Amino acid sequence: MIPQPKNINPSSSASTSSSSRLRTVRAKSSSLSFISSKYESLDYDTCENQLLVDEENTRGYPYIIQTDVARWFIFFLIGFISAGIGVFLDIAISQIADFKYGVLKHYMDVCVQEKCFYLTYMLWLSFVIFPVLVASILVVYVEPAASGSGVPAVIAYLNGVKMPHVVEFKVLVVRVFSTIATVVAALAGGKEGPMIHSGAIVGGCLATFHLPGCDCTDSVFHYFREDHEKRDFVAGGSAAGVAAAFGAPVGGVLLSLEEGTSFWSLSLIWKIFLSSMVATFTLNLSLSAYEGHPGQLTHPGLLFFGKLNDSITNYELFELPIFIGMGAIGGLLGSVFVAINMRLAVFRMKFIKNKWCKLLEALFVAFLTATSGIVSMYALDYCHPVTETSPKYAVKMFCKDKEFNELSSFWFQRAEDTLRSLFHDPKGSYTSVPLFVFFLLYYTMSIATTGLSVSAGVFVPSLLAGASWGRLIGIGIEYFFPHSEWAEPAKYAVIGAAAHLGGICRISISLTVMMIEATGNITFGLPLMLTLITTKWIGDLFTEGIYEMQIYLQGVPLLPSAPPPLSANIKATDLMSSPAVVFPSKVRVGRIIDTLENVPHNGFPIVDTSFTSTQGVLKSVGRLRGLILRSQLIVLLKNKSFNEPPPANSEDLRKKLRMFRDAYAKNQTLELRNGWIENVKITEAEYEKVLDLKPYMNPSPYTVKYDASLPRIFRLFRGLGLRHVVVLNDINEVVGLVTRKDLARYRTWRHAGTMGLKELRVRV
Amino acid sequence: MIPQPKNINPSSSASTSSSSRLRTVRAKSSSLSFISSKYESLDYDTCENQLLVDEENTRGYPYIIQTDVARWFIFFLIGFISAGIGVFLDIAISQIADFKYGVLKHYMDVCVQEKCFYLTYMLWLSFVIFPVLVASILVVYVEPAASGSGVPAVIAYLNGVKMPHVVEFKVLVVRVFSTIATVVAALAGGKEGPMIHSGAIVGGCLATFHLPGCDCTDSVFHYFREDHEKRDFVAGGSAAGVAAAFGAPVGGVLLSLEEGTSFWSLSLIWKIFLSSMVATFTLNLSLSAYEGHPGQLTHPGLLFFGKLNDSITNYELFELPIFIGMGAIGGLLGSVFVAINMRLAVFRMKFIKNKWCKLLEALFVAFLTATSGIVSMYALDYCHPVTETSPKYAVKMFCKDKEFNELSSFWFQRAEDTLRSLFHDPKGSYTSVPLFVFFLLYYTMSIATTGLSVSAGVFVPSLLAGASWGRLIGIGIEYFFPHSEWAEPAKYAVIGAAAHLGGICRISISLTVMMIEATGNITFGLPLMLTLITTKWIGDLFTEGIYEMQIYLQGVPLLPSAPPPLSANIKATDLMSSPAVVFPSKVRVGRIIDTLENVPHNGFPIVDTSFTSTQGVLKSVGRLRGLILRSQLIVLLKNKSFNEPPPANSEDLRKKLRMFRDAYAKNQTLELRNGWIENVKITEAEYEKVLDLKPYMNPSPYTVKYDASLPRIFRLFRGLGLRHVVVLNDINEVVGLVTRKDLARYRTWRHAGTMGLKELRVRV
Repeated sequence: MIPQPKNINPSSSASTSSSSRLRTVRAKSSSLSFISSKYESLDYDTCENQLLVDEENTRGYPYIIQTDVARWFIFFLIGFISAGIGVFLDIAISQIADFKYGVLKHYMDVCVQEKCFYLTYMLWLSFVIFPVLVASILVVYVEPAASGSGVPAVIAYLNGVKMPHVVEFKVLVVRVFSTIATVVAALAGGKEGPMIHSGAIVGGCLATFHLPGCDCTDSVFHYFREDHEKRDFVAGGSAAGVAAAFGAPVGGVLLSLEEGTSFWSLSLIWKIFLSSMVATFTLNLSLSAYEGHPGQLTHPGLLFFGKLNDSITNYELFELPIFIGMGAIGGLLGSVFVAINMRLAVFRMKFIKNKWCKLLEALFVAFLTATSGIVSMYALDYCHPVTETSPKYAVKMFCKDKEFNELSSFWFQRAEDTLRSLFHDPKGSYTSVPLFVFFLLYYTMSIATTGLSVSAGVFVPSLLAGASWGRLIGIGIEYFFPHSEWAEPAKYAVIGAAAHLGGICRISISLTVMMIEATGNITFGLPLMLTLITTKWIGDLFTEGIYEMQIYLQGVPLLPSAPPPLSANIKATDLMSSPAVVFPSKVRVGRIIDTLENVPHNGFPIVDTSFTSTQGVLKSVGRLRGLILRSQLIVLLKNKSFNEPPPANSEDLRKKLRMFRDAYAKNQTLELRNGWIENVKITEAEYEKVLDLKPYMNPSPYTVKYDASLPRIFRLFRGLGLRHVVVLNDINEVVGLVTRKDLARYRTWRHAGTMGLKELRVRV
Repeated sequence: MIPQPKNINPSSSASTSSSSRLRTVRAKSSSLSFISSKYESLDYDTCENQLLVDEENTRGYPYIIQTDVARWFIFFLIGFISAGIGVFLDIAISQIADFKYGVLKHYMDVCVQEKCFYLTYMLWLSFVIFPVLVASILVVYVEPAASGSGVPAVIAYLNGVKMPHVVEFKVLVVRVFSTIATVVAALAGGKEGPMIHSGAIVGGCLATFHLPGCDCTDSVFHYFREDHEKRDFVAGGSAAGVAAAFGAPVGGVLLSLEEGTSFWSLSLIWKIFLSSMVATFTLNLSLSAYEGHPGQLTHPGLLFFGKLNDSITNYELFELPIFIGMGAIGGLLGSVFVAINMRLAVFRMKFIKNKWCKLLEALFVAFLTATSGIVSMYALDYCHPVTETSPKYAVKMFCKDKEFNELSSFWFQRAEDTLRSLFHDPKGSYTSVPLFVFFLLYYTMSIATTGLSVSAGVFVPSLLAGASWGRLIGIGIEYFFPHSEWAEPAKYAVIGAAAHLGGICRISISLTVMMIEATGNITFGLPLMLTLITTKWIGDLFTEGIYEMQIYLQGVPLLPSAPPPLSANIKATDLMSSPAVVFPSKVRVGRIIDTLENVPHNGFPIVDTSFTSTQGVLKSVGRLRGLILRSQLIVLLKNKSFNEPPPANSEDLRKKLRMFRDAYAKNQTLELRNGWIENVKITEAEYEKVLDLKPYMNPSPYTVKYDASLPRIFRLFRGLGLRHVVVLNDINEVVGLVTRKDLARYRTWRHAGTMGLKELRVRV
């Protein structure tokens, strides 16, 4: 499904010169084969300048302990607040859905007798269209960053890409309300993805939290104003989000690990673990109180999927091949999902650009969802006797008394509840035809909904579609082995759900653990793992996962966890942008402004220009003394730290440090335009003043020599979370700069058992 | 408990010169305050020399796919074989233990009537002394590396320290039989730690596996002959070991992560996951077949601790403070354990040096164990009526008919079974006095056994001791709230067990998951987490965990996961060994032999000596061209690659590469002594020949500038798994070399809420 660009033959290109290699291997144009230049990187490398060293020296160990305690406290808060959001979502959705289905059922029952179908249809339509309108308006007109599930953005952020608006408070608010509306409308979208993003936003916001009006520069929050601290909090938040969404604290930690596996430390895992734990705990506590049994935390109903008893999940050895087969089906269905959705996404990027188009599209999908639901109910007249486990709002339609229409049990319930029914209802609760029809409709709907301009995740819809085909297989097996105890359709529903979701998301390790935690059944872990590993292998033969697809489609320069294979012959000189734009350590303000306004770079080596030389084709621009970032320069300009003597004592240094931290907390996207930075104007007179960059620069940035290979530079980047690596010649003079995008351009493709390296184009 | 060395005041030392700082801050002598120079590092950095680049170029992508498939296959094998070892251990132990307790019970019952106590005592003593003799002789005389649990060695290996013999086949064999003997003797030692080490050995051995006599240089196994590949397999093996020991696949993966969190990649986690899964699965399958119900994999009996039902683990909100309190007790008891055991270990290092002394010590502990067991049974005459759940071999002693002596239920069972009973037996099964006596005795015994010269782990003994005091607390609570449903002693036994083990090992995240998996009860995860986090916090106030203590006591240069705080003022010039010993790229054989025999270093920068200069106090030894390792030099010498033209074509290059890989597989500890390398002698005539190192050296080793700070160098080391970092002056000339030991010398200490940095001494 993925277009295969021309393979780069490493042996032939090794001998050609770097410039010709770059020209010849440009990948075939395709929507997945470019990276966008608009995404900046995060900077996880601490700038150990004089300011920071001085702070360390003066504050000492009590300060370390104090910040560490504060860190634990913030992680605790993250868990707590994320759970609060989860509780709010949960209660709001269930209240509104109860009202909706109650009213619908009433009119349904009345209209079957009085033949006023059109009324029910209108009513239903309005119950779908109106919430979707709200959900879509919020996303389209208020905050487009709240669209979709938000998981790809979180993944990219944890990987080190500064996605615009990804951790802003406004996104959180819009997301929460848009999600409620989407789920209430019963579009094929879930609240779990948005919960993960919400948790991440909570983490990001707490990292830069400052009380408005309070000059709390000495509060402990003050010390977390660096990208790597913020990243830690975001990781904790996303784990807390998973924990709150599925009641799966360990799954949350693992998801955070699976999606952000680089530069981890043990103490961070610990803190993330605390967040998830607190989130699960708070959610359980609040929801048990809401359901009327406070304190009784182990109430099985609080497990997301309900507790699966061993009687359901007992399995025999000979069933394992069936599970593996279902894993393969999940992989295939997932690949189809991703492939179609990719085409849909490309279509959307090309043709649905206007805001009102996006709105209309959402409404159109809403219309289809509602119509297909009601039409299928009217067309298929399968009846079931009402029992204790029957859904609360299932309607009678044309069935006899004390019976209900089977399809109504799918449409007249929240997706979560339907899922729970499929996982728990005894044999014989479902008939194959309605189940199949529901699967087809819901699978199609979920493809259409993913990528729509509403806030909606892909988890629960995938699980539901998977549970339906899983249960179908179960019914088939039951048919062939009618008297065997092991042929339990509910079990196959669970496996199908896991396989389907795994095929779409490919986050299989954490998914296994999440499924185990959400079903409360540990002995079923093994078949789940087998299924999910198969799913992953089969799925990867055809497409990427949905998140990767969405990320690559946006051209995000994601760095995979390992360097592309067979790239040792690509050298720093092939990768780097050259010549690097540099500054001397004492520099005219005018020159800085000129450079910042005309050059898009974010990192500028500081050099001693009295040393420049030419070695071979490499022209140096001076001997390396340090590195300064665009953001640092802008803060310095804004605060007009011109013609100053270098900060001499601790007080000066701390004042300067505070200046940088405040800027980080308040606005991280300060920009320089025509000499203006926000409301500060650099006057012409100031152009001639001099800025001494020495106290602020990073005095020992990580460097590589010009002949270092791509894998070496890649490992350095990925292992340490860097943003820039300075390329030096033989005598420590700067010849170029390698950034994340230079590395992300080389991407491995795998397709149906073959693989290769493609070089992406950079789109401005 | 940990000696507090003088705190290094960073602000004062910042201004002093580096040499004086080094002199003044030497830490107070103490058994934990040194690192030993005998441990070498592993080298996870790929040496991207011409040989490797050529191999990549000629082999292409099919080779990448082929090796990746082979890797998956080996991980599969690791899981399978580890489980096989687990099955063997399990069955052997249970068979022998059945025999032992059967005989003992018989004589016990007979002797109570016939008053032949001395006979029973002798019999018991021989059943303890004889196996311990076997276990200890194996460890003391055959393979000392099989002593203890082996977990510290695995942790150190994953951290990057080349522990001698840690992954050798001989250790595996000795360990398996010594463990069986120890567990059968019922010393306070478990088989779980040894299982982890065994798994790691399986991984390590498969990495360098070669069929004897077969020149399979083109088999895929051939390509894994590098430290970083081997490390991956060892990580998979240790996870498989955990999985096989506890039936906890996710716990295994997490343990691997928790103890080796650096340089992880997603694909590695995947493979480790496969290993653990296969291990769990194989073990389950084999043991269900052994127990007579093949295929029925979900049989609850296979869960390590037996399935905990919700009726046992239901908990109320107000119980959480009790759990937290128990966590604190666990932390305290764990610290006491570690503190006493450390003194014991120091005592052993000083006074029990001879082999026969070690043997005698083991026998003495065996004698104490046996005697205290039998004495306590005779002295405490608490009787219980025999029920269905009573232990199989419990004896009557002086009780009435149909009753049994309560203490005999502790001593006449495998520790694992006792643990299971404590976790499951209904209220009223235990009386406080015997339980308390058992706890005291067993806790003392487990302190004495840890560090003894037998193969024995600390997991099960800790769990058992913890379960006893936990159950005691449960009995107390039951006493005060006699009619409440929640006051279930079994629940407190579980919490106590977790807290006690957590207090000793401090591996709390993976432990939580392992407990969840081993009890099959997910809803109990939350209280477990709360308890274990408390345990960790409280325990860390007083001592390190047992594994860290053992590691530090041996002077292993372990690198923690984060650099020590407040060390930005320590620079590369303070850390490095200087001047570095270097070679030109073409070098006389005599010079190499001279250097290798007289200098203990393992990495030698290759320099161009036509460039040397002096900047300030830094004297350079030439401009950096590459880095070569001692092991590479020895292979070159052994194969007498003298006066050769550089390998020109691919065939030459591959032959050379094969030479290095074969050497890695066959013997990794080749040494040069008086011109001999194994059975190869370098003749005097060859001394004058020349070796061209250029094709073999690493052409772009990671470097830092002389003013880089400790945290920067630390992150580079830890993030990339390095062994050497070359320190350069301002113009790329070598001024020194930083190794793992230079960094490990700076260790953070934390004690009762204060912290600081200590600088350890290096002991030769």
